[in-house]
Amino acid sequence: MMQNYSCPLTLEDEQIITLAHGSGGKLTSRLIEEIFLPAFSNEHLSMLHDGAVLNMPSNQIVFSTDSYVVQPIFFPGGDIGKLAVIGTVNDLAMCGARPYYLSCGFIIEEGFLQAHLKRVVESMKNEAAANFLRIVTGDTKVIERQAGNNIFINTSGIGICMVDYPINPRQITPGDMIILSGDIGRHGMAIMAQREGLEFSSPLISDCASLFPTIEALLSEGVIVHCLRDLTRGGLATALVELSETSKMDFLVEEESIPVCEAVYGACEILGFDPLYVANEGRFIAFVPENQATQALKIMQRFSEGEAGLIGHVLSASSSPGVALKNAFGTERYLYRLVGDQLPRIC
Amino acid sequence: MMQNYSCPLTLEDEQIITLAHGSGGKLTSRLIEEIFLPAFSNEHLSMLHDGAVLNMPSNQIVFSTDSYVVQPIFFPGGDIGKLAVIGTVNDLAMCGARPYYLSCGFIIEEGFLQAHLKRVVESMKNEAAANFLRIVTGDTKVIERQAGNNIFINTSGIGICMVDYPINPRQITPGDMIILSGDIGRHGMAIMAQREGLEFSSPLISDCASLFPTIEALLSEGVIVHCLRDLTRGGLATALVELSETSKMDFLVEEESIPVCEAVYGACEILGFDPLYVANEGRFIAFVPENQATQALKIMQRFSEGEAGLIGHVLSASSSPGVALKNAFGTERYLYRLVGDQLPRIC
Repeated sequence: MMQNYSCPLTLEDEQIITLAHGSGGKLTSRLIEEIFLPAFSNEHLSMLHDGAVLNMPSNQIVFSTDSYVVQPIFFPGGDIGKLAVIGTVNDLAMCGARPYYLSCGFIIEEGFLQAHLKRVVESMKNEAAANFLRIVTGDTKVIERQAGNNIFINTSGIGICMVDYPINPRQITPGDMIILSGDIGRHGMAIMAQREGLEFSSPLISDCASLFPTIEALLSEGVIVHCLRDLTRGGLATALVELSETSKMDFLVEEESIPVCEAVYGACEILGFDPLYVANEGRFIAFVPENQATQALKIMQRFSEGEAGLIGHVLSASSSPGVALKNAFGTERYLYRLVGDQLPRIC
Repeated sequence: MMQNYSCPLTLEDEQIITLAHGSGGKLTSRLIEEIFLPAFSNEHLSMLHDGAVLNMPSNQIVFSTDSYVVQPIFFPGGDIGKLAVIGTVNDLAMCGARPYYLSCGFIIEEGFLQAHLKRVVESMKNEAAANFLRIVTGDTKVIERQAGNNIFINTSGIGICMVDYPINPRQITPGDMIILSGDIGRHGMAIMAQREGLEFSSPLISDCASLFPTIEALLSEGVIVHCLRDLTRGGLATALVELSETSKMDFLVEEESIPVCEAVYGACEILGFDPLYVANEGRFIAFVPENQATQALKIMQRFSEGEAGLIGHVLSASSSPGVALKNAFGTERYLYRLVGDQLPRIC
């Protein structure tokens, strides 16, 4: 599996990033002119100014930021470039927003291969195009060599709300249904398997994907949504606990209704992880009023080959809110927040 | 000098950042609740959602991003937190924009002191308040320990243009006057002196400061400005060369009219730097039509204890544009872009 995701290099590609690429001098210009401008080409970037002047279709914007430090940077199903675009697109989508513009800040370690940078930038370009957004302002810094293979990417995104009502944790209401968009744990376990050199009979591919098309369909087809949350660091369990605490509501979730594929289940067994806490990069939960659940589920199933499903509901307001997980035998346990870190540098 | 800028620690402060602080679990929550929320407190952040929904006073926004990797993180005149706020504020100001909102992405190395993080965050809070802007969305990642003292900060900023005409390199016109806002080289040489442990009879303090008040005064008092550029990485020389190339105009600059303080001059002599290429974090050049120059200069002098001055002018359009520097003897030489990197991790 490792082989498939390593990058074949020609001699010419073996040029590395040096400290001078971050100096603001001749090599910084070459990096911008030869790698960034051709990929992200638009009138804002080509101005080579300190910022981009943008016309928005509305006075109300949505703003989000994330830094990406995933290791390895190339993994089954994606790479750090794809992740850096879809991660921020997904954060905007979780606010009910259509993404418009992205900023991009690279921090690159001296010794990083230019060929790898080109591949990462190509991924960013493709994902930006797929999500109809433009990368309009950027920055590159170079730090001293450590192991020689680090790149960190920050993207900040600006979007516009697709509906005129708020979608956030405070809108969660007793009786809301909780719908999960697909099976969980793929991204985290694909990264871990890659790191540990594990191979499985069915391959472990990250779920890394833009959630915008699903959210756009939900909102444009008129589903009323109370809250959306993507299941990144800390996985489904952490998202549920956080939302329960922020909304001050008790949730009840049925363990049996949460899909985990065989490969993820196997990898979790071997490595000692709980799939409920494993990061995803293309899964979310939607909180919708009961009368919206059937339509919402139908739409979410269209985007997940039928994997989306109802996993629980919101009970009532509580002064010590929590998430009860009911197993196949009807026994309930409470979900908690992770105390340590089972998966560093997963996103 | 080193002593003044080191951080006195109590036993309690010696807690370090661990990988678990970046896991999305319990320690991530504590970091957010105990350090970030109290400092940056506002209704957008306290929503603990994936993004911030913001009402802007106009449909036209300015968007800019920068990552900050300066070493050492505490230096005479500032720290990485102050730099991360004013750096992006200055980029917005260079587009003629008033800053409104900032995002903030931290990448912290395992082993970094929590006391240092608190101090950096406190600086960010103070600079944000001084510039009347709010930090509305953020992210924290933790990477494995190297030397234990690295923190990288990305800020992206959103602002609104203060005037209804464009301010950018393409507006530069033959006859425009070039005004420099103050003496050059302080930031770069303060960092270098700190790194090398050099001491001078007059202390070397970074010029690190928000340029927004000066730009606001220029524009609100009705000065027509064609282009603005802050003199960060690569210094005054690089800014001039870049603008000459982007505007496709020849510039003529008088070397004698460029102020360099004694301490910077001395440090440059000892360390072998050219002050023209040394980074500043609180200096800019303004390109204004000749009939605006007197008023612009008067305003810029108000903000610089009289240090601001006319340093040159725009000659004419050229197919091979360049910047001629005339010295005291009337001899001209052409400025070029830096080829290597004389000052890594200066900002």
